[in-house]
Amino acid sequence: MELDFGKLDGLVPAVVQESATGEVLMLGFMNREALTETQRSREVTFYSRSRRKLWKKGETSGHSLRVVELRVDCDADSVLARVELRGPGACHEGFRSCFFRRLEPDGRLTQTEERAFDPARVYGEKRS
Amino acid sequence: MELDFGKLDGLVPAVVQESATGEVLMLGFMNREALTETQRSREVTFYSRSRRKLWKKGETSGHSLRVVELRVDCDADSVLARVELRGPGACHEGFRSCFFRRLEPDGRLTQTEERAFDPARVYGEKRS
Repeated sequence: MELDFGKLDGLVPAVVQESATGEVLMLGFMNREALTETQRSREVTFYSRSRRKLWKKGETSGHSLRVVELRVDCDADSVLARVELRGPGACHEGFRSCFFRRLEPDGRLTQTEERAFDPARVYGEKRS
Repeated sequence: MELDFGKLDGLVPAVVQESATGEVLMLGFMNREALTETQRSREVTFYSRSRRKLWKKGETSGHSLRVVELRVDCDADSVLARVELRGPGACHEGFRSCFFRRLEPDGRLTQTEERAFDPARVYGEKRS
């Protein structure tokens, strides 16, 4: 099985969905090494575009993402990780899901859920 | 509200999730114009990287994606479209979801669902 990493300079988007609830928790990117590490460890591991290195989700917060199954799309250029969220939330802002804001038709953003934890206590200055 | 289109040369990934079931149907990309058109028409509209133009999902197949709500992630660099799927499937291969294959730990791909329609009858040579 070979994914198509060529369309985004070595990366594929990886959607993370909570397996039990169907909630979409976040979207990150994986390079070939991150995907291999995700398969090996069964913990979602991204490639951080800003830090230019592998990034195991939860390495700072402890809020890791255990892989239940990985799916590949028809064009083999994106991944869906169905996971078990270990912790109160996936988002570094303190929410369960990174998609905690609705884009209204008039362009305003409204918050759709309450914070699940205090990010300052969990992350300090770091984020992951 | 301004999304961050700068990280991917003017694009953001857009995850499409069926609102009623939570199923992740597909992932595409939007540029600013595609997002504006999606908001205006309430029909998911992508930017096709291969054809280099806007691409209203369903323009060939009729299997369009009516927007129930749009979500924006914490970093404002990806979008989640929660939709109503109008038609038997979102995938140009004939499946409900483009993520119809599981990536097994040993690297094999296994199909996880049956085809919902015959793509040759719906698309002919085209795809959208």
